[in-house]
Amino acid sequence: MNPEQLKRLLAAVAAGERSPEEALGDLAELPYADLGFAKLDLHRELRNGLPETIYAEGKRPEDLRAIVGRMLQARGRVLVTRLRADAAGELKAAFPGAVYHERARVLTCGGPPEPQPGMIAVLAAGTSDLDVAEEAAVCASWFGHEVERSYDVGVAGLHRLLDNLPALRRADVVIAVAGMDGALPTVVASLVPAPVVAVPTSVGYGSSFGGLAALLTMLNACAPGIGVVNIDNGYGAAVLASRIARGGAK
Amino acid sequence: MNPEQLKRLLAAVAAGERSPEEALGDLAELPYADLGFAKLDLHRELRNGLPETIYAEGKRPEDLRAIVGRMLQARGRVLVTRLRADAAGELKAAFPGAVYHERARVLTCGGPPEPQPGMIAVLAAGTSDLDVAEEAAVCASWFGHEVERSYDVGVAGLHRLLDNLPALRRADVVIAVAGMDGALPTVVASLVPAPVVAVPTSVGYGSSFGGLAALLTMLNACAPGIGVVNIDNGYGAAVLASRIARGGAK
Amino acid sequence: MNPEQLKRLLAAVAAGERSPEEALGDLAELPYADLGFAKLDLHRELRNGLPETIYAEGKRPEDLRAIVGRMLQARGRVLVTRLRADAAGELKAAFPGAVYHERARVLTCGGPPEPQPGMIAVLAAGTSDLDVAEEAAVCASWFGHEVERSYDVGVAGLHRLLDNLPALRRADVVIAVAGMDGALPTVVASLVPAPVVAVPTSVGYGSSFGGLAALLTMLNACAPGIGVVNIDNGYGAAVLASRIARGGAK
Amino acid sequence: MNPEQLKRLLAAVAAGERSPEEALGDLAELPYADLGFAKLDLHRELRNGLPETIYAEGKRPEDLRAIVGRMLQARGRVLVTRLRADAAGELKAAFPGAVYHERARVLTCGGPPEPQPGMIAVLAAGTSDLDVAEEAAVCASWFGHEVERSYDVGVAGLHRLLDNLPALRRADVVIAVAGMDGALPTVVASLVPAPVVAVPTSVGYGSSFGGLAALLTMLNACAPGIGVVNIDNGYGAAVLASRIARGGAK
Amino acid sequence: MNPEQLKRLLAAVAAGERSPEEALGDLAELPYADLGFAKLDLHRELRNGLPETIYAEGKRPEDLRAIVGRMLQARGRVLVTRLRADAAGELKAAFPGAVYHERARVLTCGGPPEPQPGMIAVLAAGTSDLDVAEEAAVCASWFGHEVERSYDVGVAGLHRLLDNLPALRRADVVIAVAGMDGALPTVVASLVPAPVVAVPTSVGYGSSFGGLAALLTMLNACAPGIGVVNIDNGYGAAVLASRIARGGAK
Amino acid sequence: MNPEQLKRLLAAVAAGERSPEEALGDLAELPYADLGFAKLDLHRELRNGLPETIYAEGKRPEDLRAIVGRMLQARGRVLVTRLRADAAGELKAAFPGAVYHERARVLTCGGPPEPQPGMIAVLAAGTSDLDVAEEAAVCASWFGHEVERSYDVGVAGLHRLLDNLPALRRADVVIAVAGMDGALPTVVASLVPAPVVAVPTSVGYGSSFGGLAALLTMLNACAPGIGVVNIDNGYGAAVLASRIARGGAK
Amino acid sequence: MNPEQLKRLLAAVAAGERSPEEALGDLAELPYADLGFAKLDLHRELRNGLPETIYAEGKRPEDLRAIVGRMLQARGRVLVTRLRADAAGELKAAFPGAVYHERARVLTCGGPPEPQPGMIAVLAAGTSDLDVAEEAAVCASWFGHEVERSYDVGVAGLHRLLDNLPALRRADVVIAVAGMDGALPTVVASLVPAPVVAVPTSVGYGSSFGGLAALLTMLNACAPGIGVVNIDNGYGAAVLASRIARGGAK
Amino acid sequence: MNPEQLKRLLAAVAAGERSPEEALGDLAELPYADLGFAKLDLHRELRNGLPETIYAEGKRPEDLRAIVGRMLQARGRVLVTRLRADAAGELKAAFPGAVYHERARVLTCGGPPEPQPGMIAVLAAGTSDLDVAEEAAVCASWFGHEVERSYDVGVAGLHRLLDNLPALRRADVVIAVAGMDGALPTVVASLVPAPVVAVPTSVGYGSSFGGLAALLTMLNACAPGIGVVNIDNGYGAAVLASRIARGGAK
Repeated sequence: MNPEQLKRLLAAVAAGERSPEEALGDLAELPYADLGFAKLDLHRELRNGLPETIYAEGKRPEDLRAIVGRMLQARGRVLVTRLRADAAGELKAAFPGAVYHERARVLTCGGPPEPQPGMIAVLAAGTSDLDVAEEAAVCASWFGHEVERSYDVGVAGLHRLLDNLPALRRADVVIAVAGMDGALPTVVASLVPAPVVAVPTSVGYGSSFGGLAALLTMLNACAPGIGVVNIDNGYGAAVLASRIARGGAK
Repeated sequence: MNPEQLKRLLAAVAAGERSPEEALGDLAELPYADLGFAKLDLHRELRNGLPETIYAEGKRPEDLRAIVGRMLQARGRVLVTRLRADAAGELKAAFPGAVYHERARVLTCGGPPEPQPGMIAVLAAGTSDLDVAEEAAVCASWFGHEVERSYDVGVAGLHRLLDNLPALRRADVVIAVAGMDGALPTVVASLVPAPVVAVPTSVGYGSSFGGLAALLTMLNACAPGIGVVNIDNGYGAAVLASRIARGGAK
Repeated sequence: MNPEQLKRLLAAVAAGERSPEEALGDLAELPYADLGFAKLDLHRELRNGLPETIYAEGKRPEDLRAIVGRMLQARGRVLVTRLRADAAGELKAAFPGAVYHERARVLTCGGPPEPQPGMIAVLAAGTSDLDVAEEAAVCASWFGHEVERSYDVGVAGLHRLLDNLPALRRADVVIAVAGMDGALPTVVASLVPAPVVAVPTSVGYGSSFGGLAALLTMLNACAPGIGVVNIDNGYGAAVLASRIARGGAK
Repeated sequence: MNPEQLKRLLAAVAAGERSPEEALGDLAELPYADLGFAKLDLHRELRNGLPETIYAEGKRPEDLRAIVGRMLQARGRVLVTRLRADAAGELKAAFPGAVYHERARVLTCGGPPEPQPGMIAVLAAGTSDLDVAEEAAVCASWFGHEVERSYDVGVAGLHRLLDNLPALRRADVVIAVAGMDGALPTVVASLVPAPVVAVPTSVGYGSSFGGLAALLTMLNACAPGIGVVNIDNGYGAAVLASRIARGGAK
Repeated sequence: MNPEQLKRLLAAVAAGERSPEEALGDLAELPYADLGFAKLDLHRELRNGLPETIYAEGKRPEDLRAIVGRMLQARGRVLVTRLRADAAGELKAAFPGAVYHERARVLTCGGPPEPQPGMIAVLAAGTSDLDVAEEAAVCASWFGHEVERSYDVGVAGLHRLLDNLPALRRADVVIAVAGMDGALPTVVASLVPAPVVAVPTSVGYGSSFGGLAALLTMLNACAPGIGVVNIDNGYGAAVLASRIARGGAK
Repeated sequence: MNPEQLKRLLAAVAAGERSPEEALGDLAELPYADLGFAKLDLHRELRNGLPETIYAEGKRPEDLRAIVGRMLQARGRVLVTRLRADAAGELKAAFPGAVYHERARVLTCGGPPEPQPGMIAVLAAGTSDLDVAEEAAVCASWFGHEVERSYDVGVAGLHRLLDNLPALRRADVVIAVAGMDGALPTVVASLVPAPVVAVPTSVGYGSSFGGLAALLTMLNACAPGIGVVNIDNGYGAAVLASRIARGGAK
Repeated sequence: MNPEQLKRLLAAVAAGERSPEEALGDLAELPYADLGFAKLDLHRELRNGLPETIYAEGKRPEDLRAIVGRMLQARGRVLVTRLRADAAGELKAAFPGAVYHERARVLTCGGPPEPQPGMIAVLAAGTSDLDVAEEAAVCASWFGHEVERSYDVGVAGLHRLLDNLPALRRADVVIAVAGMDGALPTVVASLVPAPVVAVPTSVGYGSSFGGLAALLTMLNACAPGIGVVNIDNGYGAAVLASRIARGGAK
Repeated sequence: MNPEQLKRLLAAVAAGERSPEEALGDLAELPYADLGFAKLDLHRELRNGLPETIYAEGKRPEDLRAIVGRMLQARGRVLVTRLRADAAGELKAAFPGAVYHERARVLTCGGPPEPQPGMIAVLAAGTSDLDVAEEAAVCASWFGHEVERSYDVGVAGLHRLLDNLPALRRADVVIAVAGMDGALPTVVASLVPAPVVAVPTSVGYGSSFGGLAALLTMLNACAPGIGVVNIDNGYGAAVLASRIARGGAK
């Protein structure tokens, strides 16, 4: 409820069009659906531009089904992330229109998105980083943006990255996904003017410490213009890129 | 040198307007000034939209003076970050037009910037986070953006933050600076549609471990739409915000 | 044995009512039952207000059965935490009155508790934090306190938390359970006057480092009034809350 | 502003006693004083029972003076923590009634507190932990509680601790301060029924890693009933203890 | 080969009793058996008092069988640690006299040891620490020492420990095994004059970080007289205790 | 494309032998094969002396098969590391000449290598370090070098190492593989003049923290002349050793 | 108070030789001297064989003087560790017989010790480790043991260590002090039969992380028979060595 | 003493040319000079190709002077690293021929080196990394190698690095020095065939954690062929590079 609405409500009370009790009720009206075990945030899109997404990890099949059903009913579209293939099977049986993007471990359901402005380039340093990159790419597409993928363009073969420069320079945002040494975003940010969303992955072994090495590399990038998200967080990268591509407050 | 220029150069060679040797020289022309101890990157603005900045920490006074002089000569404007007050005094003596922003530890030199699109809101959670917030704000202003500051709006007094919501919702980018628990960006990102640049600070003690606690909080924010930069990196936040506000590839 | 009892014992010795050897025996009487592999602490309730609880993790089925049996015999009631569903089945077969709280992984056995003063509010930030929150809630109930649950009230949807404020402000203690960024307790502590017991959970991935991120956030909370327990330690939170609700030394 | 007040305000609007514009103003009335660089939270006492405290570390002398002045004017009493001796001198000169507690690095200003219920026992394991223990004790006294100190009672000399048991068992809350191995709270919690607030200190060297060792010990205490605060956070321990001693919502 | 032997060898060469080539061979004679994939150190007992032990983790069944066979042949006795139950079955089938100590995960083979001086007390803080404590106790017994076990004597029930004090004060070495807060050794070392070998275990969860918490507690013990071994290293504790009990160089 | 080639190309353009468009195409010709999900770097051997290797971990069977096929077609030989036995079976079925080195988890395919200069000694401290050592040895052999293995020569039995000194002193490079305390490379580097490539392994438990302990030991070696690679990185050690043995730029 | 004394006391009460009140007083008699800010543990020698030592770091000059004075009065001898040179000067002025061991930062005061059994060898890996080694050596001497120093015998020059083997093999305990890679104790323990007390030092830089590298090396030593103390804890090593040398319970 | 010498010595004993006692003395002859507080390793050059170097940090002025004097006397040349400017002044006064390399903090003394084979390229990513790069370059020069420096060639301006490629491709070894993100070595190793010695520096702030970020990046480099040394260890890099350049065992 924004100030404008509040002013209108108060005017209605002053005009006797609405009793104080009714006004109190209006103010208390919950902008979410309460399922007992979960509170769905149905107004999130109004508040920050993107609908609430369902993070499947650790949720039980029956809970997932209930949440997806309620979201579809309220908004017609739903996005589920970190969904295992077996759980996806159950949801697809329950909601026939659902599509499961296996590599991305994402399930989408509902009609096509309204097109959104801005092209988002998604880069992956190695083939082992594809899953996370796909999570980012699938989510960004589902939000309505144009997405361009360039995979296996890590700094161990600079020419592969440089070949993709023209496309990169056209992007409004670049999502750069990399594990191991995590050096890709720093090199990309030095070559293009767009903001770079850096996604460290847990790809690696030994002293990669589950992605910590790549994370620290990105946070300490000597080229500025990089915003880092959590390790393996392709979805978070897509949300940030979408906020950027849609042009902030406009 | 972009593909267009390369095509033109090759055409000139084919037309005999330029000898192969001359063409080789053109291709080799260094886009930086070599001072022996440092190579100034004079073409950076062309490449990624913002001129190279001078990071003063660990640089000697005489080196700083030489670098600033060369940059001013080449580009007319210069920005120095992480500059101690005493070193600033020397530079101001050498370059009369220079201005030192004490709280931000930033020195700016040269004419006013060309105005850039987009409003950048800079938030600081506590008064101890002001230095880093000021670094971000001063840099963003110097890049040419409108900047709006809201300080001391940490989540320990939510009403202070909520009072600033209208202004926040107008911002194209929000820079949220916080030490200790670092909870500010996650709350902000859940309330506004703009991308949030999160800056952890080293403010705190004990298990804040020099800002690590705030950094991890921000990386694990349960609200998406946040890009994190290094601890105390106000400058980096300003560059990322500027890239976002200028609208990517446009 | 407290000073009063000691004084009485010494008086009895002086009066010849008890021989020195008998007195030595009295002093040596063990306040625990020795099962060979474990020593049950039967006087713990006298000493610090709550009976010893059985932590099931890593204990063998036959040992668990022996311990539960001995505790029931000595005290009539028993609480088992961190109990897997299969092990719970065995115990329920052996002790027919036992109840297994699946989500909480807690087994309770024996009659209802004596009511204890104080209302304990248990909050969970996300649906993935429910298991730990339930451990806290079930234990607190079993200790005899009134418990009020508010789940899925994380700071990514502040209005969900604010809607629960009236109930929260009635609580004598608040247990706030949160993974990922762990920001819930700091916001709660700034809104209510009751002590807040903060429970970080291992919910999250990447740089949550098994709950470390949430733990550090809570320890560095910018709002004071928070006591932190170990990651995923719902039981410990319930014990601390119970000690607080019972009113200390009173 | 609580629901009761809101209902009254709406009724006044309905009755024409207050115009919508005035009501909007009432709702917007800021519950803090804005000094430009800092927003003082003057309603905090109403909200969570204790007035805002001034954390001096990193604040400039002139800012400190302005904040203290404004707080005294608004509320008549003020508490400053983490204040260095030299800065304390300046404040004492400016505010004659101020008292500086050197060991605790705390400055108090204004009349005596209203007595509060509950006795708080403050324990320190070693003489090097005294500073932090004193911070806790001075703050708890200033909040109005009875405080009883027992210093140098670490587990390396158990009899020293056991001698203090009778007093400890009378306490409504125990604050246990310890560096190095941090074993004191776990032993105390196993001996008394009161909640234990554990404060790790940075006392130690080598693998104490600035208090990390003591912090981890306390979080992993095998005796439940312990709430841990940040390393060296005597003030936070006092606030938590005060909330407990005042009896929660009562 | 010690100096005495060297002197004798050289004298034999001088006396022509041994040719230079033979002497070179004597000096080169390998004090180990080479199995290709492993070199058994058959002289270790001469060098540092205890025979080489076989660490089974990560070794293949067939390699284990070959090593055990070669050791038995060379020395008549063998000790295998970290042996899983299934691998133990195979070894018992191959070497009929072998005994598998399940809790300790240790297999012993060969006749009874020569009695060694000194009594070694083995303490375990909780029942979950029994496995590691048993590894220490079984190994120390196999080395020939008298061993006395006191289990479940953690500091959460001090009286259980204090009841065992008389036995403890008779010990020549105390091995104190504890997970979680790891506070047992520091309390023990303050009560008895014998050296204390502290063994942290990985028992715990959350911020125990696999035994790190207990390890740090022990290293920072405020009571001196403690030597710490690796997490879960019951065998190493037994070797150190044995060296101590045998009286050093005597 | 090196400067010489560039000069020739430009001359051809000037001579009209090649049109600007053709030249642009020549410059754009990709030195890799694009499989969609992976870009094979076919020119790597020209650039830095060794062909690209396939890291199997996390790659799908069908992707592996496609990549191996394409590499064999382009270069006739291929090396696959971190390959599980079951995946190796599939590849051997598809490519009959392939050989799987089980201990090393390496698959090699194609004719024998051209002999390369230099002898590489591979040392393993314990039998549990054999897998990593074998990875290094198999790879180095496949690159064409003479390899000499000395296993189970850790510092707990110095004589085993000293016996191998003559061979060690003949080596052009030494690869020293060790887990647990990781002390082998520092001792080796103090005894031989050749560069030492140190490989920490994840062998160990407790405070070895997955190889961190060995890694830190090697980085802090008090004997210089050591280059450290990632934990368990036998392949990387072989590449570094090969670059060294081939004599740098020669 | 041991059981024997308790029995005697109870007998005296039974015989009317001591009233219950007197007995209660006897039991309550404090075995320490209370200075207000510190409780001196005067019975520690009876309890665990060595008198309490004064750890000077963080203690104020006037407190130090009071504590030393009280200890001298009670026991005639005193040991102060971690004492800075300037503070030592003050104490020497106050207590004329005091001797300051500069390198060890130890002050000793009072007559020569009673000779104790056992020879303690103190090894230092490098010359930068001397301070910590001297702390151990001076303390062990003050306890009454024969001490033999071998300095600069690190594993980077094995022959230096091997030359000292005969002396080492005579030792009853070896204290091995090392920073950087911390490899000395593991090599020593493989060569001698005596227990080895390992002392990591903070000598080093970069990834030595203040001694963490050396600490981990020692905890993961592949040669058993090592007990580790805290980083830079020469005093703790001396106490442990003294307990060992005195022969445990004998 | 190598086997050949041993064989000759034994032959001399057999021939009566040398008595057993003399032979024993020969074998015992110490290959180092004992200064009491330090043992100089005078045979190190024979053993591993480079003379012992003096690490000045933590050494006292008088000790440094004695060590340098003894080394000069024994070998005519000496190298001192990590030497502060003030200590350098004293040494230069005592040893007139000494030269202090301020940036490198290295002092060299004695005649020019014998030329050694191989060219060593030293790269520094940023101007703040110059000190460490200079330590490497000065040491490598002093060992007798040709050294070529390329400074300020970090990946934030790739063209600066690519411009230096021809020189880099001529190098026998490349030393790549970088702080912050530490991405330089991984890019270099993908471009040149020579082995790359990677030196992380402590340049950076916040989450660089004293060079840890750069260290991890280098250990996880996705391009193989890199050997990593300790943070800021320019000297160690020079030794490793020298061993490589001299061609191993040749």
